[in-house]
Amino acid sequence: MTTTPPPARTTTLADPDTPFAVVDVHKSLRNIERLASRADRLGVTLRPHVKTAKSLDIAALMHGGASMPVTTSTLAEAEAFADGGYTDITYAVGIDPHKLPRVIALLRRGVTLRVLLDSREQAASVTAAAREAGLAIPAQIEIDCDGHRGGLVPDAPELTDIGRILHEAGCLDGVLTHAGESYFAHTPHDQRLAAENERDSAVAAARRLRAAGLPVGTVSVGSTPTAHAAEDLTGVTELRAGNYVFFDLVMAGLGVCRLEDLALSVVVTVIGHRPEYGWILTDGGWMAMSRDRGTAAQSRDQGYGLVLDLAGNPIPDLVMSAASQEHGTLTARDGATLPELPVGTRLRILPNHACATAAQHRGYYVIDSSQRPAGSTPAVIAKWQRISGW
Amino acid sequence: MTTTPPPARTTTLADPDTPFAVVDVHKSLRNIERLASRADRLGVTLRPHVKTAKSLDIAALMHGGASMPVTTSTLAEAEAFADGGYTDITYAVGIDPHKLPRVIALLRRGVTLRVLLDSREQAASVTAAAREAGLAIPAQIEIDCDGHRGGLVPDAPELTDIGRILHEAGCLDGVLTHAGESYFAHTPHDQRLAAENERDSAVAAARRLRAAGLPVGTVSVGSTPTAHAAEDLTGVTELRAGNYVFFDLVMAGLGVCRLEDLALSVVVTVIGHRPEYGWILTDGGWMAMSRDRGTAAQSRDQGYGLVLDLAGNPIPDLVMSAASQEHGTLTARDGATLPELPVGTRLRILPNHACATAAQHRGYYVIDSSQRPAGSTPAVIAKWQRISGW
Repeated sequence: MTTTPPPARTTTLADPDTPFAVVDVHKSLRNIERLASRADRLGVTLRPHVKTAKSLDIAALMHGGASMPVTTSTLAEAEAFADGGYTDITYAVGIDPHKLPRVIALLRRGVTLRVLLDSREQAASVTAAAREAGLAIPAQIEIDCDGHRGGLVPDAPELTDIGRILHEAGCLDGVLTHAGESYFAHTPHDQRLAAENERDSAVAAARRLRAAGLPVGTVSVGSTPTAHAAEDLTGVTELRAGNYVFFDLVMAGLGVCRLEDLALSVVVTVIGHRPEYGWILTDGGWMAMSRDRGTAAQSRDQGYGLVLDLAGNPIPDLVMSAASQEHGTLTARDGATLPELPVGTRLRILPNHACATAAQHRGYYVIDSSQRPAGSTPAVIAKWQRISGW
Repeated sequence: MTTTPPPARTTTLADPDTPFAVVDVHKSLRNIERLASRADRLGVTLRPHVKTAKSLDIAALMHGGASMPVTTSTLAEAEAFADGGYTDITYAVGIDPHKLPRVIALLRRGVTLRVLLDSREQAASVTAAAREAGLAIPAQIEIDCDGHRGGLVPDAPELTDIGRILHEAGCLDGVLTHAGESYFAHTPHDQRLAAENERDSAVAAARRLRAAGLPVGTVSVGSTPTAHAAEDLTGVTELRAGNYVFFDLVMAGLGVCRLEDLALSVVVTVIGHRPEYGWILTDGGWMAMSRDRGTAAQSRDQGYGLVLDLAGNPIPDLVMSAASQEHGTLTARDGATLPELPVGTRLRILPNHACATAAQHRGYYVIDSSQRPAGSTPAVIAKWQRISGW
C-alpha cells in the first residue's frame, strides 16, 4: 500500500521535526470498510470524495483503487487522479465556463469527467463547448435539498429546461445533491431524516426530468453524516462521502464516529509553559491545525483539538484552546489538573475538521496502530504526498 | 524585481483558472516604504518577519534585500532564506531541542541564526548543543509584555539565571518581545500604549540582565500594530513586523492601514446564484481564503472578506459571508441591493488575515496597479513562489 518509502532515518513518530500530520492506516481502513459495506447493503455505488485526503495512496486503500469512481473538489485533483489511472471522476463544484478546456482535455484522455451545474447559463456554456469539441461533456444538475448552498430545488421551473438543453447536446448525465445541513443534524434521528430528505430530493428531481422524456443515468447523493445514516436509497444510484476516511471531532461530536476512529492527527512538541495562566505552549499553531473551529457550534467545543500522547492515548481533559501561526496553547478543561509535560514532549492533536487540517500539510507520515505493542512510539511505515492547488 | 516570468499565455488576471492569490506590488512597496521610513526615524533596525509572504521575491522588494536581517516562523523559512543569501535570521518561535541540528547546520553555513527560549530547560539544551558542536548558538530570551503567549515577565526570577547559563556558553544574544495583544488595541491611543509597554518590557529585561553583569546585544520588539504606533524606541535595537507587507482587513479594522493599502487578494469566479436567499456563489471557499475570521472580534465583522471587481474597485456592501471548502457565498450587507454578477464574472476578495490566506496558496500572481489605465484588467507581471512546510 505504500508508494514512497519513508526517509531511511525516519523510523518512528519521534523522528521528524514537528509539526507534521499523521495518518493511522489501521483506523482509516476500518472507516473505509465500514462505509463500503453500508453502500453494498444499500445497493448503491460508493463514489468517495477525495477532497479530504487528496492522496492517491489513501484512495488505493479503498476497494477498487483506480477502478473506483471518485468525486473531486478541484480540477487539480481530477487531473492527479487521472494521472493515477482513475477514469470515472465527478468534479462536484458548479462549473466555471473558463475551466472547460481542462474538462475537455480530461475527456480526450479517456476520463469520464462529470461536471455539475444549476443554471441555463452554465448549461449553454457546457453544451456550446461540447459541440465545438465534438464530444459529450457529462453534466449533472445540482439539486438543493436543504438550502445549504447551490442547486435547484426539485420543483424549480427551469429544471426540465436545463435538462433539455443538456440532453439535446448529449450531455445530460443525471442529478446530484449534497445534504450540507446534515453537519448540523445532532441526533441519529435527525441524520436519518436528512438522509431521507436528500434521497427524496434527488429522486424527485430525476422523476421530473424523466417525466419530461429526459434520460437520467446518475442519481447521486451524499455527505458523511447522511451516508452513515441512510437506511433506504431506493432510486439512488450512487453515494458520495469524503470525510469518513479520516473522520474528525466534528463527526465525533455528531455521533457519526467514535473518538477512537479518528485517523488523522498532528504531532506537536511542547516548547514552553505558563503555569500562572495554566498554559502549555506547543509548536503547532493554526498553520498546522488550520483555523477551523467547527466544534464551536456543537454542544462540546473542542477548541482547536483534543490531545493524545505520542502513542495515541488520550490525555484526559487537555484541549488545544488557542492558536497563533506557529504556537498552540493547551489548557486543562473544567478545573482538571494540568499534566506535567516537559519541554520536548511530543503530543498528537486530533483536529476539528480533517479536510481543513490535512490541507495545511504537504503529506502524511503513515503509522499502523494494529502493528505495535501498546504504549510504544508508533513506527513510520510510509510517507504519502498530498495533491494541492487548483 | 521578478524572478519567475509568468507563463507565456498568462497575460492578465482574466487568464489563470480561479481561485488564485494576487499581490499588488505597488501597494506592497508603499507599505514596505512606510514602515522602513518609520524605523529610520525611530533609529532602529527593521527586521521584517517573512512569515506573511514567505517569499524571497517579496523580501527582495524591501530595502537591503539579502543584506537585510529577517525574522522567520519556521526553520523551513530560515533555510530557504539562507539559500537566498540571507545571513542574519531570527527564528522567533521558542526552540524545540529536537530542531537544534538544523540550527547548527545553518550556523555552520555562515548564517547568524538566532533562536528564542524562555526556560532553563531550553537554555541547557541550547548550551549543551553549542558546546558539543564547538560553536555559539545566539539565543534570545523571550519576554512576555502582555500575557499573550510565551515568555518570561521582565521581573521573572529566573531571567538572570537563564541569561547566565547562556552567557557562560557564549550564547546570550539578547531579549525579544512581541505585543500580541496589540491586535486587540482598537484605538491609536491604545496602540501607542501597547508600543510603549512593549518597549518598556524589553528594555526592563535587558536592564536586569545588564545589572547582573550579562551583555545584552539585541533588544527586539515588534508587531504590525505597535511598529506603526511607536513614537520612541529608546533602548530598543530592532523592530519586527510581518503582516504590513500585505496588510489585511483586521489591520484596516484597527486603523493601522486603509482598505486601499491591502496588497493581497484572491481572485474568484461567480458560479451560481440563489436569489431567493440573496446569495451569489463563487468558486473561492475556505481552501482559498482560509478559515480565519479575525474581524469577527472587531466592531465591523467582514465575514470571510470584502469584494472588489477584477480591476480592484470595491463593490460596496458586498461581503463574502460564508464558505465551504471550494464555495464562497457573497451577500449584500445591511439591506443593500445585490449587484448583477453573471456566472463567469471574476471578483477579488480582500482577506481578514493575510498570513492565513497567503498560506492557502503555493504562490502569487503579481500585478502593479500603478502601471495600468483605471478600470482595465490588471496585467500579470510575474508569478512568485511561496515557501511552505516546516
